[in-house]
Amino acid sequence: MQSLILFAHGARDPAWAAPFERLRALTRAAMPQASVELAFLELMQPDLPSVVAQQVAAGSQRITVIPVFLGQGGHVRRDLPQLLEQLRQAHPQAEIRTVPAVGEDEAVLQAIAAYCVAAGS
Amino acid sequence: MQSLILFAHGARDPAWAAPFERLRALTRAAMPQASVELAFLELMQPDLPSVVAQQVAAGSQRITVIPVFLGQGGHVRRDLPQLLEQLRQAHPQAEIRTVPAVGEDEAVLQAIAAYCVAAGS
Repeated sequence: MQSLILFAHGARDPAWAAPFERLRALTRAAMPQASVELAFLELMQPDLPSVVAQQVAAGSQRITVIPVFLGQGGHVRRDLPQLLEQLRQAHPQAEIRTVPAVGEDEAVLQAIAAYCVAAGS
Repeated sequence: MQSLILFAHGARDPAWAAPFERLRALTRAAMPQASVELAFLELMQPDLPSVVAQQVAAGSQRITVIPVFLGQGGHVRRDLPQLLEQLRQAHPQAEIRTVPAVGEDEAVLQAIAAYCVAAGS
Protein backbone atom coordinates (compact mmCIF):
# COMPACT_ATOMS: atom_id res chain seq x y z
CA MET A 1 0.00 0.00 0.00
CA GLN A 2 1.19 3.51 -0.73
CA SER A 3 0.21 6.86 0.74
CA LEU A 4 0.22 10.40 -0.57
CA ILE A 5 0.29 13.11 2.06
CA LEU A 6 -0.66 16.59 0.87
CA PHE A 7 1.29 18.83 3.20
CA ALA A 8 0.03 22.40 3.63
CA HIS A 9 0.86 25.33 5.88
CA GLY A 10 -2.29 25.63 8.02
CA ALA A 11 -3.95 28.80 9.36
CA ARG A 12 -6.13 29.99 12.22
CA ASP A 13 -9.11 30.52 9.90
CA PRO A 14 -10.95 27.21 9.29
CA ALA A 15 -11.86 28.44 5.78
CA TRP A 16 -8.19 28.05 4.87
CA ALA A 17 -8.53 24.28 4.60
CA ALA A 18 -11.29 24.25 1.95
CA PRO A 19 -9.17 24.15 -1.24
CA PHE A 20 -6.87 21.54 0.30
CA GLU A 21 -9.91 19.35 1.06
CA ARG A 22 -11.03 19.73 -2.55
CA LEU A 23 -7.53 18.92 -3.73
CA ARG A 24 -7.57 15.75 -1.64
CA ALA A 25 -10.92 14.75 -3.16
CA LEU A 26 -9.62 15.33 -6.71
CA THR A 27 -6.41 13.38 -6.03
CA ARG A 28 -8.28 10.53 -4.35
CA ALA A 29 -10.65 10.24 -7.29
CA ALA A 30 -7.65 9.91 -9.62
CA MET A 31 -5.75 7.46 -7.36
CA PRO A 32 -8.30 5.15 -5.76
CA GLN A 33 -5.56 2.57 -5.07
CA ALA A 34 -3.60 4.94 -2.78
CA SER A 35 -4.34 6.48 0.57
CA VAL A 36 -4.48 10.26 0.08
CA GLU A 37 -4.30 12.32 3.28
CA LEU A 38 -3.89 15.95 4.33
CA ALA A 39 -1.41 17.15 6.96
CA PHE A 40 -0.53 20.64 8.18
CA LEU A 41 2.72 22.25 9.32
CA GLU A 42 1.11 24.45 11.97
CA LEU A 43 -2.14 25.88 13.37
CA MET A 44 -4.29 23.05 11.95
CA GLN A 45 -4.65 19.35 12.59
CA PRO A 46 -3.63 16.69 11.76
CA ASP A 47 0.11 17.32 11.74
CA LEU A 48 2.56 15.40 9.57
CA PRO A 49 3.99 13.08 12.28
CA SER A 50 0.45 11.90 13.22
CA VAL A 51 -0.52 11.16 9.64
CA VAL A 52 2.74 9.37 8.87
CA ALA A 53 2.43 7.22 12.02
CA GLN A 54 -1.17 6.36 11.13
CA GLN A 55 -0.26 5.43 7.55
CA VAL A 56 2.68 3.27 8.66
CA ALA A 57 0.44 1.56 11.24
CA ALA A 58 -2.08 0.89 8.48
CA GLY A 59 0.63 -0.90 6.49
CA SER A 60 1.84 1.78 4.10
CA GLN A 61 5.29 0.96 2.70
CA ARG A 62 5.80 4.01 0.55
CA ILE A 63 4.79 7.48 1.66
CA THR A 64 5.14 10.51 -0.62
CA VAL A 65 4.89 13.90 1.07
CA ILE A 66 3.84 16.60 -1.40
CA PRO A 67 4.42 20.19 -0.24
CA VAL A 68 1.28 22.05 -1.32
CA PHE A 69 3.07 25.38 -1.15
CA LEU A 70 3.47 27.84 -4.02
CA GLY A 71 6.89 29.07 -2.92
CA GLN A 72 9.76 27.07 -1.51
CA GLY A 73 10.64 29.20 1.51
CA GLY A 74 11.99 28.20 4.89
CA HIS A 75 9.08 25.87 5.63
CA VAL A 76 9.78 23.71 2.59
CA ARG A 77 13.57 24.09 2.48
CA ARG A 78 14.35 23.86 6.21
CA ASP A 79 11.39 22.70 8.34
CA LEU A 80 10.17 19.89 6.09
CA PRO A 81 13.58 18.17 5.62
CA GLN A 82 14.07 18.18 9.42
CA LEU A 83 10.60 16.72 9.96
CA LEU A 84 11.22 14.05 7.33
CA GLU A 85 14.55 13.08 8.88
CA GLN A 86 12.83 12.54 12.24
CA LEU A 87 10.03 10.57 10.60
CA ARG A 88 12.45 8.33 8.69
CA GLN A 89 14.26 7.52 11.93
CA ALA A 90 10.96 6.83 13.70
CA HIS A 91 9.62 4.61 10.89
CA PRO A 92 12.52 2.80 9.21
CA GLN A 93 10.15 0.17 7.81
CA ALA A 94 8.58 2.66 5.38
CA GLU A 95 10.08 4.59 2.47
CA ILE A 96 9.28 8.25 3.12
CA ARG A 97 9.99 10.51 0.15
CA THR A 98 9.19 14.03 -0.91
CA VAL A 99 9.01 16.03 -4.14
CA PRO A 100 9.38 19.74 -5.00
CA ALA A 101 6.59 22.10 -3.93
CA VAL A 102 3.60 22.29 -6.28
CA GLY A 103 4.56 25.87 -7.24
CA GLU A 104 7.66 24.47 -8.97
CA ASP A 105 5.49 22.66 -11.51
CA GLU A 106 5.17 24.41 -14.87
CA ALA A 107 1.62 23.15 -15.52
CA VAL A 108 0.49 24.44 -12.12
CA LEU A 109 2.00 27.87 -12.84
CA GLN A 110 0.38 27.89 -16.28
CA ALA A 111 -3.02 27.16 -14.72
CA ILE A 112 -2.51 30.00 -12.24
CA ALA A 113 -1.40 32.33 -15.03
CA ALA A 114 -4.55 31.45 -16.98
CA TYR A 115 -6.61 32.36 -13.92
CA CYS A 116 -4.76 35.70 -13.62
CA VAL A 117 -5.36 36.48 -17.29
CA ALA A 118 -9.08 35.67 -16.95
CA ALA A 119 -9.26 37.83 -13.81
CA GLY A 120 -7.81 40.79 -15.68
CA SER A 121 -9.96 40.44 -18.79
CA MET B 1 -4.14 51.33 -19.03
CA GLN B 2 -4.87 48.46 -16.71
CA SER B 3 -2.72 46.70 -14.12
CA LEU B 4 -2.69 43.22 -12.67
CA ILE B 5 -1.02 42.86 -9.30
CA LEU B 6 -0.11 39.32 -8.27
CA PHE B 7 -0.31 39.51 -4.48
CA ALA B 8 1.64 36.85 -2.54
CA HIS B 9 2.52 36.26 1.10
CA GLY B 10 6.27 36.80 1.13
CA ALA B 11 8.92 34.99 3.20
CA ARG B 12 12.35 35.53 4.70
CA ASP B 13 13.92 33.10 2.24
CA PRO B 14 14.65 34.84 -1.10
CA ALA B 15 14.01 31.50 -2.89
CA TRP B 16 10.33 31.91 -1.99
CA ALA B 17 9.83 34.51 -4.73
CA ALA B 18 10.99 32.35 -7.65
CA PRO B 19 7.63 30.77 -8.69
CA PHE B 20 5.90 34.12 -8.33
CA GLU B 21 8.47 35.68 -10.66
CA ARG B 22 7.84 32.89 -13.16
CA LEU B 23 4.11 33.39 -12.78
CA ARG B 24 4.52 37.08 -13.53
CA ALA B 25 6.54 36.26 -16.66
CA LEU B 26 3.87 33.80 -17.87
CA THR B 27 1.06 36.28 -17.21
CA ARG B 28 2.95 39.14 -18.86
CA ALA B 29 3.55 37.06 -21.95
CA ALA B 30 -0.20 36.39 -22.20
CA MET B 31 -1.24 40.00 -21.49
CA PRO B 32 1.31 42.28 -23.17
CA GLN B 33 -1.20 45.15 -23.11
CA ALA B 34 -1.41 45.19 -19.28
CA SER B 35 1.09 46.04 -16.59
CA VAL B 36 1.67 42.86 -14.54
CA GLU B 37 3.38 43.39 -11.20
CA LEU B 38 4.17 41.41 -8.04
CA ALA B 39 3.46 42.64 -4.49
CA PHE B 40 3.92 40.97 -1.12
CA LEU B 41 1.94 41.08 2.10
CA GLU B 42 4.95 40.83 4.39
CA LEU B 43 8.67 40.05 4.66
CA MET B 44 9.36 40.88 1.00
CA GLN B 45 9.31 44.00 -1.14
CA PRO B 46 7.54 45.65 -2.88
CA ASP B 47 4.41 45.84 -0.73
CA LEU B 48 0.93 46.36 -2.15
CA PRO B 49 0.54 50.08 -1.31
CA SER B 50 3.81 50.92 -3.12
CA VAL B 51 2.87 49.00 -6.25
CA VAL B 52 -0.66 50.46 -6.35
CA ALA B 53 0.68 54.01 -5.92
CA GLN B 54 3.23 53.43 -8.67
CA GLN B 55 0.61 52.02 -11.06
CA VAL B 56 -1.81 54.89 -10.39
CA ALA B 57 1.01 57.40 -10.94
CA ALA B 58 1.77 55.66 -14.24
CA GLY B 59 -1.82 56.25 -15.33
CA SER B 60 -3.50 52.94 -14.54
CA GLN B 61 -7.25 53.31 -14.31
CA ARG B 62 -8.16 49.74 -13.45
CA ILE B 63 -6.13 47.66 -11.02
CA THR B 64 -6.94 44.00 -10.34
CA VAL B 65 -5.32 42.50 -7.27
CA ILE B 66 -5.08 38.70 -7.54
CA PRO B 67 -4.37 36.86 -4.28
CA VAL B 68 -1.81 34.20 -5.22
CA PHE B 69 -2.67 32.16 -2.16
CA LEU B 70 -3.92 28.57 -2.16
CA GLY B 71 -6.15 28.96 0.90
CA GLN B 72 -8.34 31.91 1.82
CA GLY B 73 -7.32 32.38 5.44
CA GLY B 74 -7.09 35.53 7.52
CA HIS B 75 -4.63 37.21 5.12
CA VAL B 76 -7.05 37.04 2.22
CA ARG B 77 -10.32 37.36 4.15
CA ARG B 78 -9.31 40.05 6.65
CA ASP B 79 -5.95 41.75 5.86
CA LEU B 80 -6.46 42.18 2.12
CA PRO B 81 -9.95 43.82 2.31
CA GLN B 82 -8.59 46.31 4.87
CA LEU B 83 -5.60 47.11 2.66
CA LEU B 84 -7.87 47.55 -0.37
CA GLU B 85 -10.19 49.87 1.50
CA GLN B 86 -7.24 52.10 2.44
CA LEU B 87 -5.94 52.02 -1.14
CA ARG B 88 -9.34 52.94 -2.60
CA GLN B 89 -9.53 55.95 -0.29
CA ALA B 90 -5.97 56.96 -1.17
CA HIS B 91 -6.53 56.58 -4.94
CA PRO B 92 -10.15 57.41 -5.76
CA GLN B 93 -9.25 58.05 -9.42
CA ALA B 94 -8.57 54.34 -10.05
CA GLU B 95 -10.86 51.32 -9.90
CA ILE B 96 -9.19 48.84 -7.55
CA ARG B 97 -10.78 45.40 -7.61
CA THR B 98 -9.92 41.93 -6.40
CA VAL B 99 -10.91 38.35 -7.18
CA PRO B 100 -10.98 35.09 -5.17
CA ALA B 101 -7.63 33.49 -4.30
CA VAL B 102 -6.10 31.29 -7.01
CA GLY B 103 -6.73 28.17 -4.90
CA GLU B 104 -10.47 28.70 -5.40
CA ASP B 105 -10.11 28.02 -9.12
CA GLU B 106 -11.06 24.51 -10.22
CA ALA B 107 -8.54 24.40 -13.08
CA VAL B 108 -5.73 25.39 -10.70
CA LEU B 109 -6.74 22.63 -8.26
CA GLN B 110 -6.94 20.13 -11.11
CA ALA B 111 -3.40 21.04 -12.21
CA ILE B 112 -2.16 20.59 -8.63
CA ALA B 113 -4.01 17.26 -8.35
CA ALA B 114 -2.34 16.10 -11.57
CA TYR B 115 1.03 16.99 -10.08
CA CYS B 116 0.19 15.03 -6.91
CA VAL B 117 -0.86 11.98 -8.95
CA ALA B 118 2.37 12.15 -10.97
CA ALA B 119 4.38 12.48 -7.75
CA GLY B 120 2.80 9.34 -6.35
CA SER B 121 3.14 7.26 -9.50
